[in-house]
Order: sequence, then structure tokens, then C-alpha cells
Amino acid sequence: MTTKGETTMAKAEYVIEPGKQELTITRDFDAPRELVFKAFTDPKLFVQWWGPSRYTSKVDKFDARPGGLWRIVQSGADGVEHGFFGVHHAVVAPERIVATFEYEGVPGHVLLQTLTLEALGNKTRMVAQDVFQSVADRDGMVASGMAEGADESYDRLSQLLEEMKAGRR
Amino acid sequence: MTTKGETTMAKAEYVIEPGKQELTITRDFDAPRELVFKAFTDPKLFVQWWGPSRYTSKVDKFDARPGGLWRIVQSGADGVEHGFFGVHHAVVAPERIVATFEYEGVPGHVLLQTLTLEALGNKTRMVAQDVFQSVADRDGMVASGMAEGADESYDRLSQLLEEMKAGRR
Repeated sequence: MTTKGETTMAKAEYVIEPGKQELTITRDFDAPRELVFKAFTDPKLFVQWWGPSRYTSKVDKFDARPGGLWRIVQSGADGVEHGFFGVHHAVVAPERIVATFEYEGVPGHVLLQTLTLEALGNKTRMVAQDVFQSVADRDGMVASGMAEGADESYDRLSQLLEEMKAGRR
Repeated sequence: MTTKGETTMAKAEYVIEPGKQELTITRDFDAPRELVFKAFTDPKLFVQWWGPSRYTSKVDKFDARPGGLWRIVQSGADGVEHGFFGVHHAVVAPERIVATFEYEGVPGHVLLQTLTLEALGNKTRMVAQDVFQSVADRDGMVASGMAEGADESYDRLSQLLEEMKAGRR
């Protein structure tokens, strides 16, 4: 990890209020909003940062348009595959993505994510709001180690953005 | 309204708890689950019951598959058009539909609806759960007269189901 990378490694802020069926993640990235949006909507880039690094991610489907399906399969050292999928409701460059999310390991439980990208000069504030079908679903996601996984993903995204700014991606 | 129709006109039960960002509507229909599912997924049938009768509804898009878009335009006597749209996340015959919903008059506010159809002999229990991005969104929907509109829609659906059972639709 470079020194330059470390200056942008501020961890995300999580708002997880007791008894609510939502959670909110806020994190700033040291990159223009257009680049962050691209990293969220270009499957070749998305698959490089989304999920913990101990898993290999493959894109099965990734159509970043309203009605477009997405499906990512992650596999670890044990070879077990974990599938995640959903559908895009709105994709508004470079500021907003609204999509559903379902983990195939817990079928039938769906969340609605609203991702907002706000330009702060040459930096970007990401706010990801997840709304769940129940408080139990929200709490289950939190208990599964969601924050650790998200922190690692966002660290990887931050590093990828450095490479994108340098023109290496 | 026929006498037979009236026996199935029990109004829906609404669960709208203070401070929650969800609401649940439960209503029983005097028709087999397959017919109710068809009335929810066949655009020609859907448009005959969805929305208040004082509006004329037109189907712009209606693709009842995962990733399929739907859009309905309603117009009243004043000629003003109201558009509603979303995307299907899951469509599992004859028991479950998960889809997003957005009213174009309040753009950017999205809800996730999970519709469950449970067979009760030859009757069907419908449970529709709407999850909103905020409590304010939920309360706004309720204040807009959602329950009155839904009750009228479900009354119309109940009548349509009678016609479907009689083979007239």
C-alpha cells in the first residue's frame, strides 16, 4: 500500500440505529465523482474491488441500466461459490444508482440500495443506504460481518481509484 | 356489484406502525392463487384493476420477469397523466413477486414491494409489504390516500377475479 493510498484510507462511517430496517454507509474517496461512478458501473472495474480480497469475483451479468440485471459469483480457497444478484432500478450518471441486492445463500431476502455520489471538489462522498425487508434482515447482515467486508472493499476501491487517476486502469 | 361479489369484499388489513419505514397490506380473495397471480402478472388483466376507477390506465411497459420493467400511465378527466414505474426483482409463480415502485410525480423516491400469495383452499391470502427509503416517504404515501386507492383497486381485482372464475376474462 502506497503512502499516497494511505492518506485516503479513512474508514467509512456506519449509521445502524437499533430497531431500524436500514443502514447507511458514508465514505469519502480522493477521486472525482465520474471516476467513482465508473468504478461502480463498469463490470471490469467493479469486480476488481467489490468483496473481500480473499475471494475471487467473477461477473456473470452486469447491465448498469434500469432493468439491467447484475450477478457476481465469489469463490474462496475452498472453491465454494457465493452468488449475489439484483436488478438496477435507476442509474443516473454520475450521481445515483438504485438497485436491489440478494445473496443466494439467504434466498428470498432482498434489500434496496440507494447509492449517492456527491462531488466535493475533486473528491467524492459516497452515501450507500440499504433498506431491508425487516429489522432482523438488517441485523443479520450486520452480524455477518458486513462492515468489515465493506471496509475492505472500499479500501480496494480507493486503491483502484488511485490507479485510475494515474491512468493505469 | 353482485351479491356474490359482496361476500368477498372484506376490506384489506393495513399494518402501519408509527416510526417504521414499511407498511403491510393483507387481503383475502375468493379465487385460487393461480388466478390471482395471473391478474398481477398479465398486463391486460393488471391494467383492468390497478388504480382508482376514475383514472384510465394504460400499459407502457410490463415485463413480469426478473429485470423486466413495468410502467403504467393513469389519466383522469382533466387529462393529466400520472406515470408509475419500476423493475421486477423476482417473479415466482404462483406465490411471490418482488419489485420496485416509483411515482414519477415524486421522482427519486423508490419503494421495494414484496407480494406474497398464500393458498387457503380455493381462496388466496395476499400480503403486500412495501419498504420505503424513509419513514417520511412511508408517511407521505399514507397521507396521499394510499389505503383508499388500494381498497378500491382490490375491490376491482375481486370483481375481475369473479369474471375470471366465470371464464369471462
